Amino acid sequence: MTQEKSYKWFVDTLSPFENHMHGIDRIVFSKRTAFQDVEILDLKDYGRCLILDGKMQSSQSDECIYHEVMVHPALLSHPNPKKVFIVGGGEGATLREVLRHPSVEDVLMVDIDQEVVDACKRYLPEWHQGAFDDPRVTLKYLDARKYIEETQEVFDVIIIDISEPVEEGPAYLLYTKEFYELVYDRLSHDGLIVLQAGTTTIRYLLNFSAVCHTLEAVFPIVSPYHASIPSFGLPWGFALASKKYNPMELDIAEIDHRISKRIRGELQAYDGKTHHGQFLLSKQIRTKMAQEHRIIEDNHPLYVAV
Amino acid sequence: MTQEKSYKWFVDTLSPFENHMHGIDRIVFSKRTAFQDVEILDLKDYGRCLILDGKMQSSQSDECIYHEVMVHPALLSHPNPKKVFIVGGGEGATLREVLRHPSVEDVLMVDIDQEVVDACKRYLPEWHQGAFDDPRVTLKYLDARKYIEETQEVFDVIIIDISEPVEEGPAYLLYTKEFYELVYDRLSHDGLIVLQAGTTTIRYLLNFSAVCHTLEAVFPIVSPYHASIPSFGLPWGFALASKKYNPMELDIAEIDHRISKRIRGELQAYDGKTHHGQFLLSKQIRTKMAQEHRIIEDNHPLYVAV
Amino acid sequence: MTQEKSYKWFVDTLSPFENHMHGIDRIVFSKRTAFQDVEILDLKDYGRCLILDGKMQSSQSDECIYHEVMVHPALLSHPNPKKVFIVGGGEGATLREVLRHPSVEDVLMVDIDQEVVDACKRYLPEWHQGAFDDPRVTLKYLDARKYIEETQEVFDVIIIDISEPVEEGPAYLLYTKEFYELVYDRLSHDGLIVLQAGTTTIRYLLNFSAVCHTLEAVFPIVSPYHASIPSFGLPWGFALASKKYNPMELDIAEIDHRISKRIRGELQAYDGKTHHGQFLLSKQIRTKMAQEHRIIEDNHPLYVAV
Amino acid sequence: MTQEKSYKWFVDTLSPFENHMHGIDRIVFSKRTAFQDVEILDLKDYGRCLILDGKMQSSQSDECIYHEVMVHPALLSHPNPKKVFIVGGGEGATLREVLRHPSVEDVLMVDIDQEVVDACKRYLPEWHQGAFDDPRVTLKYLDARKYIEETQEVFDVIIIDISEPVEEGPAYLLYTKEFYELVYDRLSHDGLIVLQAGTTTIRYLLNFSAVCHTLEAVFPIVSPYHASIPSFGLPWGFALASKKYNPMELDIAEIDHRISKRIRGELQAYDGKTHHGQFLLSKQIRTKMAQEHRIIEDNHPLYVAV
Repeated sequence: MTQEKSYKWFVDTLSPFENHMHGIDRIVFSKRTAFQDVEILDLKDYGRCLILDGKMQSSQSDECIYHEVMVHPALLSHPNPKKVFIVGGGEGATLREVLRHPSVEDVLMVDIDQEVVDACKRYLPEWHQGAFDDPRVTLKYLDARKYIEETQEVFDVIIIDISEPVEEGPAYLLYTKEFYELVYDRLSHDGLIVLQAGTTTIRYLLNFSAVCHTLEAVFPIVSPYHASIPSFGLPWGFALASKKYNPMELDIAEIDHRISKRIRGELQAYDGKTHHGQFLLSKQIRTKMAQEHRIIEDNHPLYVAV
Repeated sequence: MTQEKSYKWFVDTLSPFENHMHGIDRIVFSKRTAFQDVEILDLKDYGRCLILDGKMQSSQSDECIYHEVMVHPALLSHPNPKKVFIVGGGEGATLREVLRHPSVEDVLMVDIDQEVVDACKRYLPEWHQGAFDDPRVTLKYLDARKYIEETQEVFDVIIIDISEPVEEGPAYLLYTKEFYELVYDRLSHDGLIVLQAGTTTIRYLLNFSAVCHTLEAVFPIVSPYHASIPSFGLPWGFALASKKYNPMELDIAEIDHRISKRIRGELQAYDGKTHHGQFLLSKQIRTKMAQEHRIIEDNHPLYVAV
Repeated sequence: MTQEKSYKWFVDTLSPFENHMHGIDRIVFSKRTAFQDVEILDLKDYGRCLILDGKMQSSQSDECIYHEVMVHPALLSHPNPKKVFIVGGGEGATLREVLRHPSVEDVLMVDIDQEVVDACKRYLPEWHQGAFDDPRVTLKYLDARKYIEETQEVFDVIIIDISEPVEEGPAYLLYTKEFYELVYDRLSHDGLIVLQAGTTTIRYLLNFSAVCHTLEAVFPIVSPYHASIPSFGLPWGFALASKKYNPMELDIAEIDHRISKRIRGELQAYDGKTHHGQFLLSKQIRTKMAQEHRIIEDNHPLYVAV
Repeated sequence: MTQEKSYKWFVDTLSPFENHMHGIDRIVFSKRTAFQDVEILDLKDYGRCLILDGKMQSSQSDECIYHEVMVHPALLSHPNPKKVFIVGGGEGATLREVLRHPSVEDVLMVDIDQEVVDACKRYLPEWHQGAFDDPRVTLKYLDARKYIEETQEVFDVIIIDISEPVEEGPAYLLYTKEFYELVYDRLSHDGLIVLQAGTTTIRYLLNFSAVCHTLEAVFPIVSPYHASIPSFGLPWGFALASKKYNPMELDIAEIDHRISKRIRGELQAYDGKTHHGQFLLSKQIRTKMAQEHRIIEDNHPLYVAV
């Protein structure tokens, strides 16, 4: 018997020419649903994780970064968010972070794949921590694009927490100018939208850049930001788009003040310094974004390479 | 003939349970020297790269991030750096960035492995860009620890650009308290040291954290910072330690001012905003660093896992 | 949702420079026992399989080849085998094949690792098919080397169905001249021994060759043979050593006759033609074996590379 | 510096769920021609090898098995082969083996891809050993299907040494009943054809089985056989189809006699015993082949999975 080593590996295909491999401890759940391949694995380095169509969605070791960074910059930038709409977010952790804001009165969550949500409810209790049972929550299993086309509801914050746009995948019509126009109409006069926007690695910046430029075609204020989420294998980007409030106008002390006043419990990965570090993109990224001009449209969608 | 795909792969072992795989276009150079395995590869996604003992050192697509971020925060924090000492830095790109500062009059570079430097001179011209021929440069092939023990020279900035400390590797005695004390003595009264300090991923933060704490045992001011260097597969950390100047006391405008006044040519990846983004570590990292207290000593060295 | 592909892989290390990778469907069982790492996996291509210390032991799709080829040449070469001793064989499939011979009155099986046998009983029912419950069987969990040193029993056929000799592994003392001398003494006057003897690939023939030569130092008749067991990734060798009977003296018709007369049920992978095909090693293997002379001894053991 | 290990790997995709990985020492040649991806690599375990579209074609360590086994059973089964036609065989090693028969007066070799042949001439001298310069050889760079449709020449032996039939690949129309009928017409009254016929692993036997059945629809005598070629990762099949001679009617002594009388130099991997071992397929393969009835036709071609 030799020293501990792994014989079983999860291979996350970051591009046709780049893989991230993780030693597997245990396969907790594995199913091909009507929409996607779903896997819940225990990895030796990153703990439990959710994988959709072979791509890491979140892992026990760093989901706190992803979900805190997804939710709090938007909610804290708004003075008093009451109605929140989450598109996707099957793990329930985006929901969990939203519910930490006592100002929030109603959260609507729409995910297309009930089987994913059911698996997360069962196997990812550290993610949702009971959030699905909160009386403020309404959960629907629907196509979010269709829902938003038909609803008349208005929200203070809309959070798009979905997988990347792949050809024939369920998500690509949730990344277009037409979709963001629908979102704009469903936001209150001072509302905000936030979304994960793909990797910020220079080699594959097109998606991040195009998402930001598409948002800029619809919203007056667009604030791209980034975070290191090690389980993703590449640096990751987010975008916050807003009708009125600019997240960079809050200084470090003001963010820390709002956190202590408006969020229940202790955050692990986000505070005022983190906020400013994340919104200060490196010169290389800002330069490259300024050189690209692609807008994503329903008739001219963008797919990520793998 | 099917769509382009890769049959040849470079496997970068990040930990016993985590690999980063890159499609290979071409093997440019491959040799086992007296000190280490050296590979220069052309990767499909990241272009040309230098690999020592199977670990990515720098790649064409993002070496500008690594080397600008390694060099300029330290040199710009000092008002007038004249004498610089580079330990390692075989690619010549750290040297290249140092030489962009006209204030610099002498640069001493000490690398243990002449075969690495010779291969970089030949195969990485975009890295060094002729820097080795600059008359301000003195290049020696020596054990840097031994050199610094014996020299009486004094430097304004010392840059430690070496690979990670692995068991039986050439580098582990360049990460200890005793070594930093030697460095301290060889710095001028207002001198600084900067070094790459390993990954900042939470799961393997021990090395980064211990390097910073060890520096804190020697220097009054220690400023850890981080950058996304996609080819490394994990978020990466640096540490700047200083006798007098604090890099965070320069605001964004002042850094941009010093860049325009004191650096020749255009930087690609570093400016005032980048500087502040990089020194603002996330809450999760700061919390974890505060919980760890390991000091690295000659008799109690630290090795990274793989 | 794209076409079916695998994100989870089992990596079988055939040598430091050769791996065989298999898409995983399901992890059925995974444990580190007192003796070894045990995995039972469902592979996409090969079905269920048993893996010890990261090495494929047998798979649903071709275990019939391995076990029929291990057992029947030896038992059919003997005119009337009554007492059989199986060393190892945790899956129970070697036992299953032995029990198909009505002449067999007693089978002793000694495996060092009860946890492996218990897992096989539970998760590999197609392998053992209830064999462990046959009243002719005695099952002991012991060190087989020690057992054979102390017992006075005599057997007609001894089958060594164990994993390869790796350093610090449980098996290496079951491959030495001293062990085969003990086996010789515990065989009846016309007894035979058969064992799996490692790959017959030319590059790694040393183990196969040395096992055969070591047997030749003890037994008058040694018959190496080989089979293609695709899940092993490399061609595989066996050796039959005998005091009196030569398996190649039976012609195709005689073997088919003995099969029909002496084996219950239908064989899948073995008959007279198969027998002769397997004992006719290629010229390249025979030539290389003739050039090697290594004998394995307790004080001079042989370990396979990985 | 740790023990020797490989950071660079060639990944041979045997099926969507099975890969064979080889440590790379050196990339000797790599090009995308008009027809295929061509690689010549030095592998740590198997030495130099030729790879087309990511699939191992032959390796230094075992090309003697492949090429001797491809050529000599057919040529020795014929009493006096004078005219030989090789389809494919870019390495020149099939040609080398054919030319060892002094009875052969003319060899026509037709390969579609001159760039492959040129690379083999330059980088695989151990394969061709100067065979291309033999005055008996005519080499043409053409589509072999088209050539055979138009020629009126007649041959004693036709050898089809091409890669596997993949969709859109150059080879699939060289595996159909219509093609074999053309071949039949171009063979002398007692002529033979031999070809590599894909893996004989049970899980992917369809191609081997269908090739044999398709040959049976055209030729009176079809003799499938197999060999272990370790670099292929899976056991491999060949098929010899004949108008008059049956390769199994020659006993071991007669084959050894013909070898010594009719072949120049010493063979490494083939003799009478090898011949009989290879034509004696295992019961499992014979049973499965008897259950399948697929015939390959121009309008109903067969592609291998990867």
